[in-house]
Amino acid sequence: MQKLTIIKIGGNIIDDEIKLSRFLQSYSLIVGAKILVHGGGKLSTTLSSKLGIETKLIDGRRITDSETLKVVSMVYAGWINKSMTAELNSLGVPSVGICGADGECIPALKRPVGEIDYGFVGDVQSNKINSAFFQLLLNNGFTPIVAPITSEAKQLLNTNADTIAGCLAVGLSKFYDIQLIYCFEKNGVLKDINNSDLVFETMDEKTYQTLKQTGSISHGMIPKLDNAFLSLHGGVKSVSIGIAENLTQLLNHQSGTEIVI
Amino acid sequence: MQKLTIIKIGGNIIDDEIKLSRFLQSYSLIVGAKILVHGGGKLSTTLSSKLGIETKLIDGRRITDSETLKVVSMVYAGWINKSMTAELNSLGVPSVGICGADGECIPALKRPVGEIDYGFVGDVQSNKINSAFFQLLLNNGFTPIVAPITSEAKQLLNTNADTIAGCLAVGLSKFYDIQLIYCFEKNGVLKDINNSDLVFETMDEKTYQTLKQTGSISHGMIPKLDNAFLSLHGGVKSVSIGIAENLTQLLNHQSGTEIVI
Repeated sequence: MQKLTIIKIGGNIIDDEIKLSRFLQSYSLIVGAKILVHGGGKLSTTLSSKLGIETKLIDGRRITDSETLKVVSMVYAGWINKSMTAELNSLGVPSVGICGADGECIPALKRPVGEIDYGFVGDVQSNKINSAFFQLLLNNGFTPIVAPITSEAKQLLNTNADTIAGCLAVGLSKFYDIQLIYCFEKNGVLKDINNSDLVFETMDEKTYQTLKQTGSISHGMIPKLDNAFLSLHGGVKSVSIGIAENLTQLLNHQSGTEIVI
Repeated sequence: MQKLTIIKIGGNIIDDEIKLSRFLQSYSLIVGAKILVHGGGKLSTTLSSKLGIETKLIDGRRITDSETLKVVSMVYAGWINKSMTAELNSLGVPSVGICGADGECIPALKRPVGEIDYGFVGDVQSNKINSAFFQLLLNNGFTPIVAPITSEAKQLLNTNADTIAGCLAVGLSKFYDIQLIYCFEKNGVLKDINNSDLVFETMDEKTYQTLKQTGSISHGMIPKLDNAFLSLHGGVKSVSIGIAENLTQLLNHQSGTEIVI
């Protein structure tokens, strides 16, 4: 099978023009079929605040009301997505900026209201990824740049970018040998959340469950690791987590934390 | 040759949820290959104003500074583009929301600074439309929904949607029999700018030049008509201008103003 590299880029690097440019430069050098999934950075929070839209958190989790949905759709699928797409095109990577609503490529369902009403948040229908749409772009030499907005019918939905990357990887694993890399601002899964130098070289499920129970895994790492294990069980060949600056080493398994089952 | 219908939708209808939904419903019924180009409505002006970004006009023309560029990219390529795309998908039209930066499909150049510095405004390189990219989508059953943002290398640029529609029509006229329709809130080219009931059934270049010289053509109509004549000279089969509510009649040449050379 053909190789497909899926990179998810998130964290503070999205807000740092120079670091992001350097990352995109490294990304442009990846040979073969590739997809870039991006998160949102802090711009949507800044914009909401400037517009006087209150950031609502319940149990530390952000609620997406209709005004917030508009802001994240604008910031993620508009400014960030198109800026990255233009920059990658200028670096010689023919790129197309999309979100999950385009070609209904990442169908989602509005999260059911349980104890918490998350508002306009989408849960990816992971078994319904429109692989034909991604193959159409990839087989014609285009790199999809994916913003974390999905849709259920005509309703746009705010969606976790880590989950999108994981679901895409699984959905496309029937057609490609997939290497999935979560890039962010840390060197990998930290051995000690207060020391960013020491990372696990590998992480298996048993260790993860133990560390999760003892609270030794940082909050932001949990969706990445949950999705990493789901991806490996779903047929993805290789998953790792590491720092965006080391993308080349991450691709060669010489940096970050390799997730294993 | 296969038929291709290119509709440009602009004006106040973009801001009117109910009218826009009705328009998209009619649009969804168009048989065969089609492209939708949309303008921006008033949301970007409202957003700029809420953010305290001054709308700069020189001789009545809007200047796009870097903050305004961010706003229009967010509003046009983010919220409006993805909302319309999701709605059309839900109406059974497989749609992909793009802007001119995607696949460098509508290459542009930053407008040179002359007497006026328009800022980050793009002039379409009309002879460089990436027709292969549009054909890829169209031939695979997708309808491109095009936001009026283009790029020169990595620089995003604010671009006139009427011009984009016209340039796309000309660029694709080698491959398709093209019907181009400019939809807005008026019934067509008005015989009297103070009376919205009477419209010209047809408009030829000589009449247009005369009316333009006497100031009898409204300001917003000029780019539509200029692009309409350019399109017809460039190989487009049919161009008309009319009210969005009458889309079906416009398609059948039973409403609006037919532009002729």
